[in-house]
Amino acid sequence: RCFHFCKLPGRVMGIRLLRFTSVVIIVLLLVAGALTALLPTIKDDKLPNSRREPKTQSQSALDSFTLIMQTYNRTDLLLKLLNHYQAIPHLHKVIVVWNNIGEKTPEEMWNSLGPHPVPVVFKVQTVNRMRNRLQNFPDLETKAVLMMDDDTLVSAHDLAFAFSVWQQFPEHIVGFVPRKHIATPSGVYSYGSFELQNPGFGNGDQYSMVLIGAAFFHSGYLEDFQRQPEAVYALIDETQNCDDIAMNFLVAKHTGKPSGVFVKPVDIRNLEKDTNSGYSGMWHRAEHLLQRSYCVNKLVTIYDGMPLKYSNIMISQFGFPNYANHKNKM
Amino acid sequence: RCFHFCKLPGRVMGIRLLRFTSVVIIVLLLVAGALTALLPTIKDDKLPNSRREPKTQSQSALDSFTLIMQTYNRTDLLLKLLNHYQAIPHLHKVIVVWNNIGEKTPEEMWNSLGPHPVPVVFKVQTVNRMRNRLQNFPDLETKAVLMMDDDTLVSAHDLAFAFSVWQQFPEHIVGFVPRKHIATPSGVYSYGSFELQNPGFGNGDQYSMVLIGAAFFHSGYLEDFQRQPEAVYALIDETQNCDDIAMNFLVAKHTGKPSGVFVKPVDIRNLEKDTNSGYSGMWHRAEHLLQRSYCVNKLVTIYDGMPLKYSNIMISQFGFPNYANHKNKM
Repeated sequence: RCFHFCKLPGRVMGIRLLRFTSVVIIVLLLVAGALTALLPTIKDDKLPNSRREPKTQSQSALDSFTLIMQTYNRTDLLLKLLNHYQAIPHLHKVIVVWNNIGEKTPEEMWNSLGPHPVPVVFKVQTVNRMRNRLQNFPDLETKAVLMMDDDTLVSAHDLAFAFSVWQQFPEHIVGFVPRKHIATPSGVYSYGSFELQNPGFGNGDQYSMVLIGAAFFHSGYLEDFQRQPEAVYALIDETQNCDDIAMNFLVAKHTGKPSGVFVKPVDIRNLEKDTNSGYSGMWHRAEHLLQRSYCVNKLVTIYDGMPLKYSNIMISQFGFPNYANHKNKM
Repeated sequence: RCFHFCKLPGRVMGIRLLRFTSVVIIVLLLVAGALTALLPTIKDDKLPNSRREPKTQSQSALDSFTLIMQTYNRTDLLLKLLNHYQAIPHLHKVIVVWNNIGEKTPEEMWNSLGPHPVPVVFKVQTVNRMRNRLQNFPDLETKAVLMMDDDTLVSAHDLAFAFSVWQQFPEHIVGFVPRKHIATPSGVYSYGSFELQNPGFGNGDQYSMVLIGAAFFHSGYLEDFQRQPEAVYALIDETQNCDDIAMNFLVAKHTGKPSGVFVKPVDIRNLEKDTNSGYSGMWHRAEHLLQRSYCVNKLVTIYDGMPLKYSNIMISQFGFPNYANHKNKM
């Protein structure tokens, strides 16, 4: 009985000990959890959620970029540009988005004229859509994307510098063509370029978008684009326009900052006149600009607000093309 | 005896319980500690450790800056500049570092010609030292410091724009005068400007310092400067030079990035010739540049390494002075 009696407290203690331990462990987990929640929002977290790790970790994929060029009815220009871009430093791969539905790609001819330093992949499309170029291509292995229109040539030097700028501003669209929106007293937005001025804004100018037809941006934004409201895709398909405006909305919403960083190009050219197809780009349509203002207002409704922010920063390369570019009156 | 016997396990348990509890508490503290160590390095943490909270939280102190101007033997220019800087937007206060030892300040005259929109404080010095301007002035209430030489005039427009740039790069020296160092094969460094070229560096130019004689920087760096090795102060006093080079070392060490961001000035002028004192600045001394190379090499020894990093980014204001500044050949 004595034993029976005095074992009791032991067992009781054992149970208490157990309860106590579990309580403590729970507390431990809670504290750990709470503190973990506070862990660093490192720069990379500002980047598009996906693609923090590129599919391949190869050094080249980390400090190089992929050129995505959509083409329609300008195969002669395309080949000229493909030749030009073969010699660009840090270029990892070229993805050609082939919007000439039912037509054969020039892949055979291209390969027959090889070898080429940079691999070119032709992605044959089934529908001729503006937003085909905004797919999350499995061939894309780099964090950095350079998107170029098929009628625009930017010098190798401008591209190399802009890429180094993008590496310092990876959550922004770093490009050569700035645009802006203006809020009118009626509350309706207007889309335009330097000709469009913000009444009441003092000296100089501002931009709120950088067009993706000649720009670097993070490949993760292509994944984010796949998760937008259906109305956005409908708007782009209905107008065959504004995919670049939608990307600026997406980036501005993501960062809470101006979507773009404008790099002043030293040499950028439109080669449209050089094509034999005689095809001239969508932006020549009379309704082009009107459509773009229409898109800005539609996107504000879809996203329930205006995320675009203004910037007045223009970046050039120090001492290029010559010393004069930074010397002053002093 | 039975009691004596069976109390034992209880007490033992009690002791075990105690030991266990204390162990658990220690573990808890360790985990908490470890995780706390991982807490966010938020942007502000990149800023100089001190001054995260300005002495006053007044809005004006947060979105305004303090002008610190050191003056020696150029009181006529000083008054001209004080008049000019009175009209600068976002200017919170002017601190004049009075290096005319034993001379009366023009404070009385200045006040007699008031009222003035921006308060001016004269800090009378007891020794004429280059580094007097790098004190942690108690009158300094803003996070942003604009430091200007007493012979340099920068347009109100340039200052307003550069301040907006500094607000986007608060851990950098944002200013109008870039300089660089060059490593020679002998391992000895050379100091210079655009005339000094880095053999083997391709197109364009680079800079690794932004002079504080015409620049914005975080006031916390003035506190950090008070905690540098004695040898740094000795070097500056011995040469009456290089305080600005030392600040670039300090900032580069602190951020691990290029110390400066160069903003291309539209209108910056040297007013030296306008002074009646006929006094011409220290930088006219034959040994000025040699001294500065000497300082770079000394500082590398003192800090046991070369922290300066190169940048080739030049920032201008979009659309100012005119649209042409961003339009291209397209």
